[in-house]
Amino acid sequence: MLNFSIFRKSESNRLQRNGCTLKLNGDTVYLKRGKARVGRIETAHGIIETPCFMPVGTKGTVKGLKKEDIEATGAQIILANTYHMMLQPSAERVQEFGGLHKFMHWDKPILTDSGGFQIMSLSKLCKLTDDAAIFRSHIDGTQYVLTPARSIEIQYMLGSDITMVLDQCIHNPATYQVAEAAMNRSTKWAELSKQSYKPRKGYGIFGIVQGGLYEDLRRESAKQLVNIGFDGYAVGGLAVGESQEEMFSVLDYAVECLPEDKPRYLMGVGTPADIIGAVERGIDMFDCVMPSRCGRNGRAFTSMGQLNIRNARYASDRGNLDLECNCYTCMHYTNGYLHHLFKAKEMLGGILLTIHNLHYYNALMSSIREHI
Amino acid sequence: MLNFSIFRKSESNRLQRNGCTLKLNGDTVYLKRGKARVGRIETAHGIIETPCFMPVGTKGTVKGLKKEDIEATGAQIILANTYHMMLQPSAERVQEFGGLHKFMHWDKPILTDSGGFQIMSLSKLCKLTDDAAIFRSHIDGTQYVLTPARSIEIQYMLGSDITMVLDQCIHNPATYQVAEAAMNRSTKWAELSKQSYKPRKGYGIFGIVQGGLYEDLRRESAKQLVNIGFDGYAVGGLAVGESQEEMFSVLDYAVECLPEDKPRYLMGVGTPADIIGAVERGIDMFDCVMPSRCGRNGRAFTSMGQLNIRNARYASDRGNLDLECNCYTCMHYTNGYLHHLFKAKEMLGGILLTIHNLHYYNALMSSIREHI
Repeated sequence: MLNFSIFRKSESNRLQRNGCTLKLNGDTVYLKRGKARVGRIETAHGIIETPCFMPVGTKGTVKGLKKEDIEATGAQIILANTYHMMLQPSAERVQEFGGLHKFMHWDKPILTDSGGFQIMSLSKLCKLTDDAAIFRSHIDGTQYVLTPARSIEIQYMLGSDITMVLDQCIHNPATYQVAEAAMNRSTKWAELSKQSYKPRKGYGIFGIVQGGLYEDLRRESAKQLVNIGFDGYAVGGLAVGESQEEMFSVLDYAVECLPEDKPRYLMGVGTPADIIGAVERGIDMFDCVMPSRCGRNGRAFTSMGQLNIRNARYASDRGNLDLECNCYTCMHYTNGYLHHLFKAKEMLGGILLTIHNLHYYNALMSSIREHI
Repeated sequence: MLNFSIFRKSESNRLQRNGCTLKLNGDTVYLKRGKARVGRIETAHGIIETPCFMPVGTKGTVKGLKKEDIEATGAQIILANTYHMMLQPSAERVQEFGGLHKFMHWDKPILTDSGGFQIMSLSKLCKLTDDAAIFRSHIDGTQYVLTPARSIEIQYMLGSDITMVLDQCIHNPATYQVAEAAMNRSTKWAELSKQSYKPRKGYGIFGIVQGGLYEDLRRESAKQLVNIGFDGYAVGGLAVGESQEEMFSVLDYAVECLPEDKPRYLMGVGTPADIIGAVERGIDMFDCVMPSRCGRNGRAFTSMGQLNIRNARYASDRGNLDLECNCYTCMHYTNGYLHHLFKAKEMLGGILLTIHNLHYYNALMSSIREHI
């Protein structure tokens, strides 16, 4: 039961028709397509303006950042991973501590994924049935049985504002048969997830559209999920091996099958260009490890494109990462100092670039909202 | 030319005579000896209340902490390492960036050591003459020649508020002959250091008393340094293998030979008990990697003693590191969450424990100042 209101759509906007000054990689970018919208999701832990980006806090921490650092990047909501939290320290432990918000000292909304993606990408000896995913922990080999109901229960124990249904993810490209089977199983799991979910005001559950790169499967998946009825709809199984063109193509027909009045979430995506293209196609929410992971590795997103601060040219550079940025890092640190930190293997380097990159992503979303 | 004023000495203090409530490892500790004093050093970058502790920012960063984090621990001054900065990114580079304060975004005082200790402990193929230390970088093997004058020049380029003379450090125990030779060389280097140092208001240079564990050598070293004349005097070559009793014994006679009206600095020390014992013996300044290094390794200093947050008992502990602490970490995070961060190898764990430990050390110094 999440209240979602749409305030503006791109069709009605003057700036949109005339193009806008949204900058990407040094170029002015236009929100070309007519499906972009500005909305607002009201959750138990506050309001989320959409389109929005969710920094990833896999293990109950956005790596290296304190709450105030995360907030200062403009983050409205973060994502945590059910798979990681169930393995360590366990959902029961987090519940004992009053839920994930209290445990990790974050009082804004949290979305948790269901574990589906990590079971595919991280766990060992995974076996899927129509009832459950049976797998071994990548940490210590312990066997887990994750049913759709258990995934929902875990997310309840974590106290997630937005719960995701358990789904079966596949790599792209996949054969039609594989994609179809995974889609059908995901629909069954979505139904079981919905059944075990207890609606509460300010909390919601999202279905996840699967179907690989096959239009009829994506349409069928969306239709089935809409029949079950969710507070929002995610498009899953993308950014797992396909091209940007293929991804946009899936969005073109998948979003068409989703209700106008519910938030739409593109899972695990992506680059700034991916995000802009997806917003144009009607997507409201995004998450991705890219800004934080790149940051830890010395790569920064800027209005002029990406840069690698380890590059020797930055050793003597008294400029900042991005002239147009007013994040904590750009306000206080030169590229020369950041270069030094990375060269000296000092963790502050990764922290400062994570802060910058998350600020870049959140500022991008804010700019997108303004320009729709 | 550093202005140093002494406000209170322990002899004249009522609390001191009656004992005080300074707590250590769960016990009430008394400042037993009469040499403790409360003072104030005025530097170009602000005032330092003494006795004080200086967090270590070896490579131009207190590991993992932003400026605001360091300030919030109560730090009045930090220490940076000449050896590390000269190797990477080089003193010339830091100077190009306007000095270390600007480079690292820290506008309070900075003390730099001279490189003497690290040459002994870190460099390769080190050869010492009466004119210079010749050694190879532990990073890439490059050969460096560090003369006393060059050490002073580097510290000038870094913009240090307090410069240390180049000294020759030895491990304890050392033979009388070794200790005497190192002490004599240190005196020569101290003289050369002083000669090449250009006095400026708000900046100062400290001599370093050497002489191992030999009373006559320590007295001789102190006497020679006082003859040369410095803005302050450090006791070096301790915390390098000797017992606490031996260290205190050195302080007993070394401090006696130093002028009352200049700050005294015990280099690289130590545990809270070491610090209290040294304050009682008339020491005003301390630095040590212990609080930050222990923090990164999961060890916390508390009013009830040390604890290791990795211990399984903390997994379910909803309490905080220290009931009596009001640091950022203790105000917001349970031991259960901190335990989780360390178990999950998340860098936020080390950051939060570093914040706590530095706060503990600075609060200890503040408490000591109150109780003198």
